[in-house]
Amino acid sequence: MRTYKGYLLDLDGTMYRGNEVIEAGRRLVHRLNEAGIPHVFVTNNSSKTPEEAAEKLRLLDIPARKEQVMTSSLAAARYITRHFGESRVYTIGEHGLHSALKEEGHTTTRGHSDVVLMGIDRSISYEKLAQASLHVRRGVPFLATNADKAIPVEEGMVPGNGALVSVVETASGKTPTYIGKPESVIMEEALAMLQLQKKEVLMVGDNYDTDIQAGIRADIDTLLVFSGVTSSGELPHKEKQPAHTCDSLDEWEI
Amino acid sequence: MRTYKGYLLDLDGTMYRGNEVIEAGRRLVHRLNEAGIPHVFVTNNSSKTPEEAAEKLRLLDIPARKEQVMTSSLAAARYITRHFGESRVYTIGEHGLHSALKEEGHTTTRGHSDVVLMGIDRSISYEKLAQASLHVRRGVPFLATNADKAIPVEEGMVPGNGALVSVVETASGKTPTYIGKPESVIMEEALAMLQLQKKEVLMVGDNYDTDIQAGIRADIDTLLVFSGVTSSGELPHKEKQPAHTCDSLDEWEI
Repeated sequence: MRTYKGYLLDLDGTMYRGNEVIEAGRRLVHRLNEAGIPHVFVTNNSSKTPEEAAEKLRLLDIPARKEQVMTSSLAAARYITRHFGESRVYTIGEHGLHSALKEEGHTTTRGHSDVVLMGIDRSISYEKLAQASLHVRRGVPFLATNADKAIPVEEGMVPGNGALVSVVETASGKTPTYIGKPESVIMEEALAMLQLQKKEVLMVGDNYDTDIQAGIRADIDTLLVFSGVTSSGELPHKEKQPAHTCDSLDEWEI
Repeated sequence: MRTYKGYLLDLDGTMYRGNEVIEAGRRLVHRLNEAGIPHVFVTNNSSKTPEEAAEKLRLLDIPARKEQVMTSSLAAARYITRHFGESRVYTIGEHGLHSALKEEGHTTTRGHSDVVLMGIDRSISYEKLAQASLHVRRGVPFLATNADKAIPVEEGMVPGNGALVSVVETASGKTPTYIGKPESVIMEEALAMLQLQKKEVLMVGDNYDTDIQAGIRADIDTLLVFSGVTSSGELPHKEKQPAHTCDSLDEWEI
């Protein structure tokens, strides 16, 4: 088995499920730290700041600093800087998204905008969706943090950002540029934090359609762990296979 | 030109645009009344009651009684009665939808439901969409008043019910049964009000994709008037043609 100089690690389904730690995930991070192997946590969750995501990990006894977390919000804010410069962003989203935009020097606006950016917003309103649709129909570039259709809560699966985005998509007839996994935008940003070559890095996650596809599209080796969304039985039906698979991250030798 | 014993008449784009009457539409209704030809107004707008829709017409000097109006809300409420009997309906919608359900003897609920029904709701919230998604994922039958993607307001086009429905559709992976035009459910209900045979009736409207398609699917002759959404230039690209077309309803001899 080949070794890697750096790791990109998914959070939900890989490090924890909801508020419950996945022990083998926790042990992998400790092993990486002991071996001095750099790693970055990569999450599509746009609602939290990197510091909040790191804090959640630390509460589960998984060491993490905010500089080790790439969220879809942070990746979106940096993408906007690179493509549009300092921007006025019509923003639908929660605290983590507003915070990332501010930290990157953008302003959020309800008026004239350079970019429309949508992330999950559990305070969504018709007025927010209507204004976003009007901006997008007028030709303002349309971005979305991630395309996750549904997210798990205690009672079951509820609408994710991809579901909310579909309102503006349907009303405007325009599809956004997505930032999060499986798109490579977030992967490139995470890779930049590691300062390593693609072939030196391994992407680890539990979800074939987001984590593994993100690795494949970004040309980064992947390890699929069967601790979350994707089961081993689904894998034979996938056209492109992960480089490695395991039932538990305890099996993985770094 | 053949004559018809009854008429089904679209509202927005045919009788008026926003709050402005379309004179030739108004004159057609007066001519129908003078000739004693029965007619029913058929609208996908679920937010108003039949009485409110009739009142709007009367304010524009178009004679109308509530018994002459078929809304997608009323058609939905009757469809539920026929298919599920008296039901507990998890309802997303405005006044017109709640009122139609109540009048048909259904109850609206936030708890256990027999049916999920979505109409336009400009007080939409994440919680409403999440609960609807959970109900639909549990297998509760899923209905929607209409699939209109966008609706016109002064500033442009904003999300219609079809856009809001896409949230629950995306999150649940299930497509609703639509009631409004171009589906034939609303047409059958409107036809029942006329008490005439399909071949005796003409459907009049300005929108090929809703009004004319509704007539074609319900096997009712159609008259497309170029006073609203569909222009004459678009028509050659359509596979199935309306029975008749006109630039103004003044040209139409009843």
